[in-house]
Amino acid sequence: MYFKDITIIDKDLEVREHMHVMTDGEKISYVGDEAPADTEGQEVYDGKGRLLMAGFVNSHAHSPMTLMRGYGEGLALQEWLNDRIFPFEAKLSSDAVYYGTLLAMAESIRYGIVSTNDMYYFCDDMAKAVIDAGCKNNISRSITNFADDDLWTMASAKEMKSFYDNFNGAAGGKIKVDMSLHAEYTTTEKTVRELAEYTKEIGANMHVHVSETKKEHEECKERHGGKTPVKYLSDLGLFDTRTTAAHCVWVEPEDMDILKEKNVSVASNPISNLKLASGVCNVPELLRRGINVTIGTDSVSSNNSLNFIEEMKAFAIASKMMYSDPTAVSPKQTAAAATVNGAKAQGRNDCGVLDKGYRADLAVIDVSGPNMHPVHDMLNNLVYSASGSDVCMTMCDGKVLYRDGEFTTIDIEKTIFETEQETKKILSSL
Amino acid sequence: MYFKDITIIDKDLEVREHMHVMTDGEKISYVGDEAPADTEGQEVYDGKGRLLMAGFVNSHAHSPMTLMRGYGEGLALQEWLNDRIFPFEAKLSSDAVYYGTLLAMAESIRYGIVSTNDMYYFCDDMAKAVIDAGCKNNISRSITNFADDDLWTMASAKEMKSFYDNFNGAAGGKIKVDMSLHAEYTTTEKTVRELAEYTKEIGANMHVHVSETKKEHEECKERHGGKTPVKYLSDLGLFDTRTTAAHCVWVEPEDMDILKEKNVSVASNPISNLKLASGVCNVPELLRRGINVTIGTDSVSSNNSLNFIEEMKAFAIASKMMYSDPTAVSPKQTAAAATVNGAKAQGRNDCGVLDKGYRADLAVIDVSGPNMHPVHDMLNNLVYSASGSDVCMTMCDGKVLYRDGEFTTIDIEKTIFETEQETKKILSSL
Repeated sequence: MYFKDITIIDKDLEVREHMHVMTDGEKISYVGDEAPADTEGQEVYDGKGRLLMAGFVNSHAHSPMTLMRGYGEGLALQEWLNDRIFPFEAKLSSDAVYYGTLLAMAESIRYGIVSTNDMYYFCDDMAKAVIDAGCKNNISRSITNFADDDLWTMASAKEMKSFYDNFNGAAGGKIKVDMSLHAEYTTTEKTVRELAEYTKEIGANMHVHVSETKKEHEECKERHGGKTPVKYLSDLGLFDTRTTAAHCVWVEPEDMDILKEKNVSVASNPISNLKLASGVCNVPELLRRGINVTIGTDSVSSNNSLNFIEEMKAFAIASKMMYSDPTAVSPKQTAAAATVNGAKAQGRNDCGVLDKGYRADLAVIDVSGPNMHPVHDMLNNLVYSASGSDVCMTMCDGKVLYRDGEFTTIDIEKTIFETEQETKKILSSL
Repeated sequence: MYFKDITIIDKDLEVREHMHVMTDGEKISYVGDEAPADTEGQEVYDGKGRLLMAGFVNSHAHSPMTLMRGYGEGLALQEWLNDRIFPFEAKLSSDAVYYGTLLAMAESIRYGIVSTNDMYYFCDDMAKAVIDAGCKNNISRSITNFADDDLWTMASAKEMKSFYDNFNGAAGGKIKVDMSLHAEYTTTEKTVRELAEYTKEIGANMHVHVSETKKEHEECKERHGGKTPVKYLSDLGLFDTRTTAAHCVWVEPEDMDILKEKNVSVASNPISNLKLASGVCNVPELLRRGINVTIGTDSVSSNNSLNFIEEMKAFAIASKMMYSDPTAVSPKQTAAAATVNGAKAQGRNDCGVLDKGYRADLAVIDVSGPNMHPVHDMLNNLVYSASGSDVCMTMCDGKVLYRDGEFTTIDIEKTIFETEQETKKILSSL
């Protein structure tokens, strides 16, 4: 596709007007301020009133939980989990997970998300939905273990291994299989150690929940002789491969030293953390230390949307509040966290950047509306003034997945219908 | 218009499916679970995949500041005000204010806002824009006074009075003229007293900034022998007419007693308060005491949008964070604050409710998208999962102002063009 005379957010996250961008197959083949020499056979996309940028990377999600959107609202955390979420999850089926994930991918694509870091189970069904949707996902089968079992005697670990063997690199690399430890408080030392070793051995990424709530953080220290979750997990080797640590709301300065030393990416989930009243991630300090900070939505059960523009705004303003400083976290830092930092965390180094040679993972934003004027600073308008639905096209590996209300890979009416049906089935079985 | 087989949020803020609603002239003439007897001559609106509700009331705004959207981002508060906002405002013209307000009304209407509480100056130009847009607005000419002038020797007061005389009740009551004291820290005791008296005399509403920042709150106490802004203003009689107090972030328990006793409405502006790092309004406690709490966007210079669904979500989650309680502020309380409470604060008792006999001030939300499924709880989905742009129709006094991307009263391209031109003129004169 040839994007003609369009405003872009370039590789340095600078806004440039009147640019020309072309994709060829799965990649971006041209970016320049003049029309490319040869545009023959290319569909011409009129750039008037449009902003072209790298698609968003959602660094922390549990897509099948879309089935539980708004389920159990108004309950306190433990009640919500014990009386609603856990019983519902116990009844999940392959079909429910497939359609729940497909619906999440539709919502993601609609909001300009091209790639997700997902953590859940029924991963084969999740992968099938992602492949059908045509987007990217680093999917991990989350491991929990409360007994002292050997890792490989556990059904979940066997599932994880078989999922890795069958799906890692599937769909031309769109699917990557990561490993996942659910969290310190849901596993034993032996499990952490064994999973860390296996992950290193196969060279996979690690995805883990870390210090989401104060309770979790403090109880870890009580359990492990003062060691924080970061220190404990690091000592057991969990961060010896490329790791995304979700939340990190309660991490301490020494934890940040470790995260930096181990090149751990931190996925901040501002809306979920606010909505569940977990706290605010110290993004400005993490950024100051050069830690790779990314943005996640967490599940829609605790958000309750995948609106990534909304998430960017929350990411920036939560930090301002925390620091009593309206200048904390700039629109550029926010845009980086929403795109290139997320791609790096996934180990997708040819993604997340609008430049020649990178994957054509792109989002087009309609900037013609009243909410996007006047334009003193386009990046500012993107982060603070755009609406999620201003995304008018999403492309992954050069293929259009969503455009002007239409999904090209997903039968959205069927997906919504089937999701509702699967949800009803589960509710009626409770 | 006859809304056929549609989901509604009814007068008790309960969600009811398969309802039938009809408007006749400026009012709602029918609400029922069966089709009305006579629908002849009525346009039929197909309710499939749509939610009908009372339009939103934006309880605190400075619409012309739309001209400064994103201007001076990345500066600290005082620098932002002194180096950017104040010099820009000094150059405002009638045309700039007219188009800035018209653009704000376009954005408002696009997001389902039918009525606004505006505070600024150049009010005649603001009123003209609101009348042209066809929505409602309680406009007030904000009074500041640092000397000890008699109120009526001040040009601003004369402007205020003439604006009241010329525009109060204009456009069939769509325009209401309120009085406005900017704030305690920008006026003298004499001005507060004189303005309070005049406001009571003419029976107008009062609109005032109260305890937005900690600095303002504490300095007031130092200046006035320990009196908080609420206590000080109340003692001077400012709350003796129907009053909207914007922000109230730093009010104390004794202040809340006064707000309750004086029937003062509190307009909470969660995004602006977070973005400017002013703090979080204690909405749960205000609600517990039975105070009428409403929602405002504040100006887009400090927000930077008028996306009211986003504002509702921020309203609810800011309170959860403040109380470390995910159950603080329910979707129903949020919907009330966004509609009926706002109408009450404006003294528009026939607005803000979807029921027979009320004004046909309505918003239609497209709930057919992937982000709005499954539906465990529609009100929950509205507050937490909808996107601002899911608003697909806005009607004021029975007249459609926006529908499916089209504005019926505003030439949006011209408005954007003229706003950009006026902005450039001001910038080039600085």
